[in-house]
Amino acid sequence: MSKKPTIHDIAKQAGVSPATVSRVLNNYAHVSQKKRARVMAVIESMEYRPSYTARSMRTQRSRLIGFIADQVATTPYAGDIIRGAQDVAWETNHILMVISTGDDLNHVQQAVDALLDREVEGIIFAAMYHRPVTVPPNIYEVPTVLANCFVEDRSLPCVVPDEVRGGYEATCELLKRGHRRIGFINVFTVTPGIPASRGRLAGYRQALAEYDVPFDEALVCFGYGAAEHGYDHTKQLMSLDNPPTALFCGNDRMAMGAYDALHKLHLEIPDDVAIIGYDNQEIIAMALHPKLSTMQLPHYAMGHWAADYLTSEEDADEVGETPVQRLLPCPFVERESLG
Amino acid sequence: MSKKPTIHDIAKQAGVSPATVSRVLNNYAHVSQKKRARVMAVIESMEYRPSYTARSMRTQRSRLIGFIADQVATTPYAGDIIRGAQDVAWETNHILMVISTGDDLNHVQQAVDALLDREVEGIIFAAMYHRPVTVPPNIYEVPTVLANCFVEDRSLPCVVPDEVRGGYEATCELLKRGHRRIGFINVFTVTPGIPASRGRLAGYRQALAEYDVPFDEALVCFGYGAAEHGYDHTKQLMSLDNPPTALFCGNDRMAMGAYDALHKLHLEIPDDVAIIGYDNQEIIAMALHPKLSTMQLPHYAMGHWAADYLTSEEDADEVGETPVQRLLPCPFVERESLG
Repeated sequence: MSKKPTIHDIAKQAGVSPATVSRVLNNYAHVSQKKRARVMAVIESMEYRPSYTARSMRTQRSRLIGFIADQVATTPYAGDIIRGAQDVAWETNHILMVISTGDDLNHVQQAVDALLDREVEGIIFAAMYHRPVTVPPNIYEVPTVLANCFVEDRSLPCVVPDEVRGGYEATCELLKRGHRRIGFINVFTVTPGIPASRGRLAGYRQALAEYDVPFDEALVCFGYGAAEHGYDHTKQLMSLDNPPTALFCGNDRMAMGAYDALHKLHLEIPDDVAIIGYDNQEIIAMALHPKLSTMQLPHYAMGHWAADYLTSEEDADEVGETPVQRLLPCPFVERESLG
Repeated sequence: MSKKPTIHDIAKQAGVSPATVSRVLNNYAHVSQKKRARVMAVIESMEYRPSYTARSMRTQRSRLIGFIADQVATTPYAGDIIRGAQDVAWETNHILMVISTGDDLNHVQQAVDALLDREVEGIIFAAMYHRPVTVPPNIYEVPTVLANCFVEDRSLPCVVPDEVRGGYEATCELLKRGHRRIGFINVFTVTPGIPASRGRLAGYRQALAEYDVPFDEALVCFGYGAAEHGYDHTKQLMSLDNPPTALFCGNDRMAMGAYDALHKLHLEIPDDVAIIGYDNQEIIAMALHPKLSTMQLPHYAMGHWAADYLTSEEDADEVGETPVQRLLPCPFVERESLG
């Protein structure tokens, strides 16, 4: 082979997952002797040379954790994932070093290289909205956990929001208050399908089915997330012959637009139309009149879980071919907009 | 001396500023030979040992810049300072490593130590609101620039918003539209005095004086920054015998509360009362009806300037006893709330 072998090449050749190769390189317990021997044999035959980091970790601890974020400024949530990880890092006497890549693949590679050079003990790789990601192959050289994102082949542990359950519970909050015509202003479109959009729609349908309410396509629309999209879609939904008595908005900004539209139509919240948002973006939810009831996106909890996973020995000893894919709930935050 | 000498001890003994000692240690040009010799003599007599970082920098470049932030999540602006610095870092082939300290002094010290250990070429130390800060003494061992904060003795270069000019220009925007009764819902209190509060009040008074409008204490109040404070103060201001025809709100969240209060009083914006905000927090300013005119806090520009300062040779050669204390303007962002 003319090209330097990667951890993926080793995994393929040894018939194991990249995560297992990573565990062998990092000398974790609980990888079977047989599997370890097979991986080591392939590593030797392919002359694979792990970075200094992976090798040095066996004997020394740098107390550094790397955090790679795709964006830090385009959403107000970025900070919450970082803060969750940061709090665990300080509590466990680690330093979290954050690099923001702007989602540029070259930057992501440089960030991983820089963190490996600085001998990080592990890497948290975070996305600002829940989505599949691709990661540089050498990230497998140190324990890595994905926050608010996942790799399609599930070869790395991850922690993401439970979108289906969130959509289900938001809809149930409206159903159990007697609503049967529930408009759903979902985020983005279902095709190609980001997990938030697809998952919450599945949850919405599941809740309706449980209450024997027929699904009505006319009640579902998709907005790109700004207040104006919520405004436009609310006007459209309220102009139906049989308009909704409740709105489930895919984020709090669209809910803010929905408030404006209902206000223009002289409809009262929650008496004429109940509204539930998503995200719990407090700067909006707390400032609206009446205050917005919404579903909490667990950004802080995901950052916390990811850092906890990396710094806790038990979790790091996770075995089996598929690393843990953890779903965290999006708790209901009750305020005043449901009545 | 039983205690290890710091860069401050050297500076005091040599009769120069800590910044000059830093320049000597980092081998910058343009420090006079005489001064350099004096500093070096003190360094030798006190047996001062700079960290590996400071010494190694003379011959090699790590391409790393450290960024220490007091908070990443409590304001939505944190990301903008980081993003400004990040963009310059990637452009100039540097990697920016961000550590968030939660404003805990032990964490700040650990962050500085960790960055010095990793041989950063320089450090950006940022605060999420404009204020004086204290920094660990060893931060002087590498070129350091403060963003949105400053040290009281002015011994480090800094970049901060021009609060006086911002307050002046915001008030002028109202005065030039004919308003003479201008309510000012300032941020926080003037005593003990954060620069935003004190500076903008000075600018407000300066603008009034220029238009020969007498200052009326009854028109000035202080809110802690949430929408509800804007709401309460607006109600109070509008209940004056001679109420304001325009409001200058110290941030966009309080302006949002002012909108609600005026709405409750059946007053139209901008026809009955004009409103100008501060910060340009777009998630609020763009979503309000009518859209909020406001002053832009230059967070992105400060991060950009700080990284530019560190990575540009010319700026690093800055001489003189007081390092540059750079003020950046807060540009007026016109939307619909002034008429």
